[in-house]
Amino acid sequence: MKINVIKSVLDASDALASVNRGRMDAVGLTCINILSAPGSGKTTLLEKSLPMLPAGVRTAVLVGDLQTTRDAERLEHSAAQVVQINTGNGCHLSPSQIEKGLDALDLTAIDYLFIENIGNMVCPAAFDLGEHRRAVLLSVPEGDDKVAKYPTLFQKADVILLTKIDLAELLEYNFDRVYDDLSRINTAAPVLRLSMRTGEGLDAWLDWLIAQRPAKQ
Amino acid sequence: MKINVIKSVLDASDALASVNRGRMDAVGLTCINILSAPGSGKTTLLEKSLPMLPAGVRTAVLVGDLQTTRDAERLEHSAAQVVQINTGNGCHLSPSQIEKGLDALDLTAIDYLFIENIGNMVCPAAFDLGEHRRAVLLSVPEGDDKVAKYPTLFQKADVILLTKIDLAELLEYNFDRVYDDLSRINTAAPVLRLSMRTGEGLDAWLDWLIAQRPAKQ
Repeated sequence: MKINVIKSVLDASDALASVNRGRMDAVGLTCINILSAPGSGKTTLLEKSLPMLPAGVRTAVLVGDLQTTRDAERLEHSAAQVVQINTGNGCHLSPSQIEKGLDALDLTAIDYLFIENIGNMVCPAAFDLGEHRRAVLLSVPEGDDKVAKYPTLFQKADVILLTKIDLAELLEYNFDRVYDDLSRINTAAPVLRLSMRTGEGLDAWLDWLIAQRPAKQ
Repeated sequence: MKINVIKSVLDASDALASVNRGRMDAVGLTCINILSAPGSGKTTLLEKSLPMLPAGVRTAVLVGDLQTTRDAERLEHSAAQVVQINTGNGCHLSPSQIEKGLDALDLTAIDYLFIENIGNMVCPAAFDLGEHRRAVLLSVPEGDDKVAKYPTLFQKADVILLTKIDLAELLEYNFDRVYDDLSRINTAAPVLRLSMRTGEGLDAWLDWLIAQRPAKQ
């Protein structure tokens, strides 16, 4: 009985995610859902990299947080449109929240829509929001043991960003352990090493982003 | 209707948490639920500090993780009894999982039982497991903006541990911002600064632990 309830909730959620995806496909925008633990650097990544996209590329962000508009305020100079979604006690963004977010945006003026999900390695991984791609961040200070401990998050990633790599030497971070764990659950997603302090890896992230967008007719 | 379902789930959960607390009270043990984001240093804190407790103090740990027994293996030399609880896709420990954990322990041989919750700043905060105290960790690399963004977690804390403070200068961490945010939601819990690399703050954490335990007759 309990399983049936959960299944029907996820079925309804997936159906609404498909509606969201259809709306975005209709205007030809590319949607990227960004997931990670709290403090892995999702906002900083967007803040620094979106202004580096080629001139004329139009971006928007739906920013999820339990409380505050701090992240939206940080992003207002990096993207043309920013909408904050506060979930209260909600541990992940839902397709219905994204639906309302889409209503609040001018979809015809967007090439890339980024969804900055709630900082949480567990719950957001279970919910399709209608995105086209998933980017998962794992920051060096979180430790090199997290891939095997939170496998669902990494299994569903289309790209994996190892962030704050400038701290790797100081923290004696074992990259091989991460790659070894990933080799068992996701060999398709490229793994990029980034530091927002030094700028290392930003080019590779921008190249990946550009490659996700089908050439316009 | 949906709200009623959630309420009855939480009522049943709270009832079982009270049963757990009753079992622990009956044998006179003190239970501390440890919560934080992934990679804040919960396991390292226990690994380093439990062997520093006064001789004769008997400890046990219930370790929650989605997958793997890595944390339990790390703790086997630090506590006399360690039980790993794997939740699969579960985003928090539940009172029924703690009930099974209590069944697996020799409760009469424990002074302190630590529950290392799932690394998640959202869901674990909503669930009483039957603990007597809550310790919440916030690591410096996660950023100084997290208290206001995850208020429920910090509101319910009995002690707050700022960890990895050896990175504070390098990361230009603003302690005042953290204290300012805390002053609005929780003025009762002491805030301790810790570094497991330098050992700073371990004494204060041990003093706090010892103060939570009623003197034996």
